[in-house]
Amino acid sequence: MTHRPIRLGMVGGGNDAFIGGVHRIAARIDGCFDLVAGALSSTPEKAQASGAALGLSPDRTYDDFKAMAIREARLKDGIEAVAIVTPNHVHYAAAREFLKRGIHVICDKPLTATMADAKKLVKAANDSDALFVLTHNYTGYPMIRQAREMVANGDLGNIRLVQVEYVQDWLTQQDDSKQAAWRTDPERSGLGGSTGDIGTHAFNLASFVSGLTLESLSADLQSFVPGRALDDNAHVMMRYEGGARGTLWCSQVAPGNENGLRLRIYGDKGGIDWHQENPTQLWYTPFGEPKRLLTRGGVGTGDAAARVTRIPAGHPEGYLEGFATIYNEAAEAIEAHRDGKQVSADVLYPTIEDGLLGMQFVDACVRSSKRDAAWVKLAG
Amino acid sequence: MTHRPIRLGMVGGGNDAFIGGVHRIAARIDGCFDLVAGALSSTPEKAQASGAALGLSPDRTYDDFKAMAIREARLKDGIEAVAIVTPNHVHYAAAREFLKRGIHVICDKPLTATMADAKKLVKAANDSDALFVLTHNYTGYPMIRQAREMVANGDLGNIRLVQVEYVQDWLTQQDDSKQAAWRTDPERSGLGGSTGDIGTHAFNLASFVSGLTLESLSADLQSFVPGRALDDNAHVMMRYEGGARGTLWCSQVAPGNENGLRLRIYGDKGGIDWHQENPTQLWYTPFGEPKRLLTRGGVGTGDAAARVTRIPAGHPEGYLEGFATIYNEAAEAIEAHRDGKQVSADVLYPTIEDGLLGMQFVDACVRSSKRDAAWVKLAG
Amino acid sequence: MTHRPIRLGMVGGGNDAFIGGVHRIAARIDGCFDLVAGALSSTPEKAQASGAALGLSPDRTYDDFKAMAIREARLKDGIEAVAIVTPNHVHYAAAREFLKRGIHVICDKPLTATMADAKKLVKAANDSDALFVLTHNYTGYPMIRQAREMVANGDLGNIRLVQVEYVQDWLTQQDDSKQAAWRTDPERSGLGGSTGDIGTHAFNLASFVSGLTLESLSADLQSFVPGRALDDNAHVMMRYEGGARGTLWCSQVAPGNENGLRLRIYGDKGGIDWHQENPTQLWYTPFGEPKRLLTRGGVGTGDAAARVTRIPAGHPEGYLEGFATIYNEAAEAIEAHRDGKQVSADVLYPTIEDGLLGMQFVDACVRSSKRDAAWVKLAG
Amino acid sequence: MTHRPIRLGMVGGGNDAFIGGVHRIAARIDGCFDLVAGALSSTPEKAQASGAALGLSPDRTYDDFKAMAIREARLKDGIEAVAIVTPNHVHYAAAREFLKRGIHVICDKPLTATMADAKKLVKAANDSDALFVLTHNYTGYPMIRQAREMVANGDLGNIRLVQVEYVQDWLTQQDDSKQAAWRTDPERSGLGGSTGDIGTHAFNLASFVSGLTLESLSADLQSFVPGRALDDNAHVMMRYEGGARGTLWCSQVAPGNENGLRLRIYGDKGGIDWHQENPTQLWYTPFGEPKRLLTRGGVGTGDAAARVTRIPAGHPEGYLEGFATIYNEAAEAIEAHRDGKQVSADVLYPTIEDGLLGMQFVDACVRSSKRDAAWVKLAG
Repeated sequence: MTHRPIRLGMVGGGNDAFIGGVHRIAARIDGCFDLVAGALSSTPEKAQASGAALGLSPDRTYDDFKAMAIREARLKDGIEAVAIVTPNHVHYAAAREFLKRGIHVICDKPLTATMADAKKLVKAANDSDALFVLTHNYTGYPMIRQAREMVANGDLGNIRLVQVEYVQDWLTQQDDSKQAAWRTDPERSGLGGSTGDIGTHAFNLASFVSGLTLESLSADLQSFVPGRALDDNAHVMMRYEGGARGTLWCSQVAPGNENGLRLRIYGDKGGIDWHQENPTQLWYTPFGEPKRLLTRGGVGTGDAAARVTRIPAGHPEGYLEGFATIYNEAAEAIEAHRDGKQVSADVLYPTIEDGLLGMQFVDACVRSSKRDAAWVKLAG
Repeated sequence: MTHRPIRLGMVGGGNDAFIGGVHRIAARIDGCFDLVAGALSSTPEKAQASGAALGLSPDRTYDDFKAMAIREARLKDGIEAVAIVTPNHVHYAAAREFLKRGIHVICDKPLTATMADAKKLVKAANDSDALFVLTHNYTGYPMIRQAREMVANGDLGNIRLVQVEYVQDWLTQQDDSKQAAWRTDPERSGLGGSTGDIGTHAFNLASFVSGLTLESLSADLQSFVPGRALDDNAHVMMRYEGGARGTLWCSQVAPGNENGLRLRIYGDKGGIDWHQENPTQLWYTPFGEPKRLLTRGGVGTGDAAARVTRIPAGHPEGYLEGFATIYNEAAEAIEAHRDGKQVSADVLYPTIEDGLLGMQFVDACVRSSKRDAAWVKLAG
Repeated sequence: MTHRPIRLGMVGGGNDAFIGGVHRIAARIDGCFDLVAGALSSTPEKAQASGAALGLSPDRTYDDFKAMAIREARLKDGIEAVAIVTPNHVHYAAAREFLKRGIHVICDKPLTATMADAKKLVKAANDSDALFVLTHNYTGYPMIRQAREMVANGDLGNIRLVQVEYVQDWLTQQDDSKQAAWRTDPERSGLGGSTGDIGTHAFNLASFVSGLTLESLSADLQSFVPGRALDDNAHVMMRYEGGARGTLWCSQVAPGNENGLRLRIYGDKGGIDWHQENPTQLWYTPFGEPKRLLTRGGVGTGDAAARVTRIPAGHPEGYLEGFATIYNEAAEAIEAHRDGKQVSADVLYPTIEDGLLGMQFVDACVRSSKRDAAWVKLAG
Repeated sequence: MTHRPIRLGMVGGGNDAFIGGVHRIAARIDGCFDLVAGALSSTPEKAQASGAALGLSPDRTYDDFKAMAIREARLKDGIEAVAIVTPNHVHYAAAREFLKRGIHVICDKPLTATMADAKKLVKAANDSDALFVLTHNYTGYPMIRQAREMVANGDLGNIRLVQVEYVQDWLTQQDDSKQAAWRTDPERSGLGGSTGDIGTHAFNLASFVSGLTLESLSADLQSFVPGRALDDNAHVMMRYEGGARGTLWCSQVAPGNENGLRLRIYGDKGGIDWHQENPTQLWYTPFGEPKRLLTRGGVGTGDAAARVTRIPAGHPEGYLEGFATIYNEAAEAIEAHRDGKQVSADVLYPTIEDGLLGMQFVDACVRSSKRDAAWVKLAG
C-alpha cells in the first residue's frame, strides 16, 4: 500500500465484544486503514471506555452511530469508511446512516436480522454512491482464491457436486454467555440460528468457489438443545443451476468441532478439498492422477492466490490474514472510487447482493424446513 | 481357534472376479475355514479353471451351484457353509439351494437385486435351520466395535446426529470394465447403483454403531454420467426413531476418493469420528475436553475391540482382517449351532434382517427420489 | 498360488508368545504354507498344549527343536520349511539343526543374540543348500516396494539423505512383562536393546529402499530407565558409500509412539516420506512440483508394488499382509528351489547377509557409543 | 494495548527484501508500534524509494543507519526502538549505533555473522540501558508457550529426549536469487549456512520449551550442492545438562519440505509433538493414556498460551501472529522500562544471551564437524 491509509470508523466492537477486535486487526495488518472514530457500544459508558482503550480521541468517540455518521460526514478529515460489527438486528439501521452520507460500509454478516431489513438495506446501498462490503471473510483465504481460479479455469471440468459443511460444538449444551445469548435470540439474530451464523458463510463460500447459482434447496432444521428458539443444526440438499447438486451441513452441536468449515467440489475432470482449520492446504486430484497437495505460496498455485499472499510457503497465514484481505480489497475499491477509476477485476469482495443471497438462503431453509423439507427456491 | 476348520464352499469368485478372492483370504486368515468346494463361475470352463487354480479337487469343482448344493449336502464330509460372492441378482437363487439343505450361507451384500427376491430370501432363511451371514465387512473393524460399545455405554450421551458418507471416484467417467459393467446394470445389480453398492454399507455401519432405527428418509439421487441407468451419487437426509437426524452421502463420481467411508456420530455428551482408510484410529471428544485419539490395541479401548484385535497397537490391521472378523464370527456361530449351544452375545455379524433393511433402504431412496425427495418410510 | 502349500514347521510361538501368532497368520493369508509341525515351547507341557491348540497332530508336536528337525527330515511328508520365532539367543542353535538337514529356514530378526552366533549361522547357511529368510517384514509393504522402485528408477535423483526412525513408548517405565523381560535381558536379546529389537528393522528398511551401503556410523546409546541393562534409545548418524548421509533414531521410551517407523529419503531431484502406521500412503515430491500422495493400488504406482498388492486402493492392507508377503516371497523361492529353477529377480526377501548386516549394525552402535560416539565401520 | 504506540525505526527491509515486510506486519498487528523512520537500504536510491513506498516522511528516510541513529536520538519524538532486518553481517554495526544512544533494538537472527561480532554486540548491549530483543519468532506461537508451560509444570516428568528438526527444500539445487545469495555467502551470512539460518531457530526453540541447557554436541555438516561454501544440511546429536539427550536436524535440501520445523519432547511421564506448519495443534500423550490434541484457544490449554492468543479456537492464527507476539512482548518490556517498572515475569522474548547461545551453537557445530563430529562444548 503506497497510499495514505483510509480513515475508518467502527460501530459496535466495544470492550467485551469479539468480532470487533478481529475487524480492527484485519484493518490494521496491511496498513490500509486507520481507525479514528467509533460508536463502540449502545451503552454510553461502555462506548467511552472502549474508545479510550483503543486510543480514540474523546471527541470522536460517540455514544450512538447516528451522531457519529452526522458529525463525521461533516468533518474535513471525517471517516471515509465504517465497519459495522454489531449484532445482526442493528446492521440495517446503522448502515443506512452512513450510506446515505456517502460513507463506505464494511459490514459483518449476515446482512440483517430480517428479510424486510435486508431489502431496505439493498435499496439504501443501491441509492448510495458509497460501497458496501460484507465480511464473508473466508473468501479471503489464498487457497480459496486458488480453488476459485481452478474451477473457473476448468481444471475440475463440469462441476457436478458441491459439498460444504461448517461444524462447531460450542452450543452443544445450554450456554448463557453473551456470545451465545444474542446468537440464539430471534430478536437480535434473525430467523436463522446456525444457518444464519455459519450456514451463510458455508453457502457463500460454496458459491464463491464454484461460481454456481443455487436453484432450490430442501432443508431439515433442528433445535436440539431444549428451549432453544433457533436452529442449532441444519441439513440442506441443494440443486444448482446447470445440474450440479450439493449438500450443506451446519451445526453448533457436534462435539469435537471448533470451526470445521470444509468445502469439497467435484467435476467430471477432478476434485478439490479444503479445510478452514488448516487453510494453507488445498487438495487437488485430477481424475486418473495422484492426489496433489497445493500449498499457499507453493509451486502449482496461480495468480489469484499469489495476489493475496503475504509470505512464502510453509509459514502459515491464518484467519486474521484472510480477514485482512477482505479489508484490503475494500481499500482498493475505495481508493479506485476516490480516484474515479474502475477497480481492477481481480479485486474480489462480498457485496450487498451476496448479503441478500445469504438472507434468502436462511429464509429458504426456514421455509423448506417448515414444509417438511420441501424444495423451495430462493426468494426475497 | 482350537476346533477343526469349517468346510467351506464358494459360489462365484472365479479367476477374474474381485470380491471372491477377498472372501477366501478372510476365511483363511484365522484358520477357521477350509475351502473345499466351489461353483466358481457360470461358465463351466472358467469354473473348472478357477477351481484348479485354487487347488480344489476336480470332483468338488462344480459347473453350477445347484449341483454343488445337492451333492455336497449328501457327502459325509460335505461343506458346512457356503460363501456366495456372485453379482447381486444371483444371490437369492444360490442361497436358497443351500439354505434348504441346511448349509450355512455367508453372502455378499446387498442381499439381492430386487425387493421381491429379498423377501423370498428372508423366507428361505427363516424356514431354514441354517445360519445366514451377510458380509457388511466394515462392522468387523476393531475401532467400529469400539465405537459401538462407546455409544452403547452412553459415552456420547443421547445421540443427536449421525453423519455417514462413502465416497469413491472410480465411476467418474464412462467405464466398461467387468467390475463397472454389472454394478451399473439394473438387471444384475438391482434398483440401486451407488446406493446399493456402497450406500448400503454406509447405512448398515451407521445403524450398527449408533444402535438407532431409521424412521424415514429423503433422498436425491443422480446419475451424472450420461447413459448410466443407475444412480452414481445420492444425497440422503435421515430421521431416526427417538429424534436423531443424519445425512448419508454416497458417490462413485467424486475424484480423489478411493474408499472414503467415514462415520461421525454426535450426542449431547460427546462425538466420534472414524475413517475407513485409516481404520485403526478413532477420534473421540468428550464435550468440554480435548480430543483424544483412540487406536486399535491402544490404551483406552475396551473389550469389544479387544475381542477382535489380533496384534498390538501401531501395527495396522486392515480391510482383510476386518473382513476376516465377520468370517470368524460366522465360525463361532456355526460352531455353537453345531454343538447345540447358545452363541455368545459378543458374537456380532450382519444378519438376513440387516440385508432386508439394506434393500429397504435402497428401495426407499429410489422411491423418495422419484417423488422429488419426499420423506418416505422404509417398507418392504 | 496354484501349487500345493509348503509344509511348515515352527520353533517357538507357544501359547503366550506374540510373534509366533503373527508368523502363522502371515504363512496362512495367501495359502502358501500349511503348518504341520511344531516345537512351540522350551517347556514340554506348554509345547504340547500349544500344539493341541493349533490343531497339530500330537506326533508332530515336539518337545524340542532338534527332535523335530531329526524326525521331520526323515518323514516322507516332513516339513519343507521351518519358522523360527524364539527369543534371539535360540535362533542360531535352532536354525543350524534345520539348515544342516536341508530344511529351509524362515527366521525372526535380529539374526542372533551374539556376533559369534551370527557368524556361525552365516556359515551354516552357506554350507546348506536350504534357503534362509529373515523376516524384516516391513520390506513387504507395497508402498515400500514402490519407494524402492522409485529410488532405483532415479525418480529422486542422486540420493543425499536417509532419515529413518522407529519410535515406541512401551518401555518408558519399568516393565516386567514377558515381552519386556527378554528384550531387556542381554542373555536372551543380545548386545542391543532398542537397537536390536527395532533399530535393525529401521536400518534394514533404509538400506532396502535406498539401495545404499553403510560405510560408518556414530552412535550415542542410552538406557534411560534405571537398572536397564540394554539401550532403550539410540541416536545414530550414518555415512553411506557414495556420499549420502543419514540419521537413525530408535527409541522405546518416547510416550505417544506405538510403532512409529518412518522413512524419509531425499535426492537432488525429489523426496519421499513413508510412515508404517499408515502404510498405504507414500508421499512423493519431485523437486519444484506439488507434493503427491501415492496410495497402495492407486494410480501412479508401479509394477513392484502391484506385484505384492492384494486388493484395490482405499481398502487398507496392513502389517499382517506385509508380513505375509515375506512368506509369499519365501514360498516362491522355495518352489523355484524345489523345481530347480532360477527364482525371479522380482522376488525379494531379507537374507542371511541382511541378518549379518543387522548384527554388525548393532555391534557398531555399541562399539561407537562406548567410544563416545566415534565413527566406526561395520565389522564382523 | 491502551498506551500510545511505540515509535519504531527500521534498518534494512527495503523494497526487494523479505523479512522486513514481516517485521512491519508483526509490529502493526496489535497496534503496539508505529513505524516512523527508516534506513531501509544500503543503496540511497533504494532507501528513498522504499521509504516513500512505506509512507515514511522524507526527512525520516535515511541513507544510512548511523545517520538515522544520530538524528533520531536527538529528535524530541525520535524513535524509541529500531528493528534491524539486514543480512547478518550488518547486525552488529547497526545495533551498536542505536544501543549506545539508548534506543531499544529488535534484531533479526542469527545475532551476527561472526563470533567476534557477537561478543562485541553482547558487550554493547550490556553497556547500554536499552533493551535488546532477538526475533526467534517461533517462541511466540501460543502452543509453544503451552508446551513450555507443560514442561515447566512437570506434565512430561523428567525430560529425557529432545528431538527437533527444521527442514526446507528451497536450496536443493543451485539458486542465484538474492535471498539465496546472501544466505550461502560466508561474508554476509557467517560461519553457518543452514545451521545459522534455521538451525539456530530449532536450537532456540528446543531450549525455550525444554528449559534445558546444552552441554555438548556432535555435528556432521554437509554442503551437498556443488560449490556451496556453507552447510546446507546438518545432523547434530546433543547432550543436555542433567542427562537429557537429543538430535537436531536442519536441512535446506530436502524436497517436499517448506518450513518443516518440528519439536518433540519426551519425559518419563509423557510426550509432546508440535509442527510449525500447523502451529495451532499440540499433541500431548500422558504415558499410559490416549493421545490428546490440544488446540490454540481450546480446552485444556493454560494461562501461558491464553496470554498470547487473540481469537478463539478453530480459527487459525499463523506465523505473522506468532511474530507479532515477540513484538508485543518487546512493547511490554519497553513500556515497563519507560515507566521504570519491573516487567512481568510472563513477558518472554529472546535476549542477547539467546543470540550468543545461537552463535555458539553454530560455532560448535562447525568446530565439531571439522573434527569428524567430535563432542564439543559451546564456547564463546
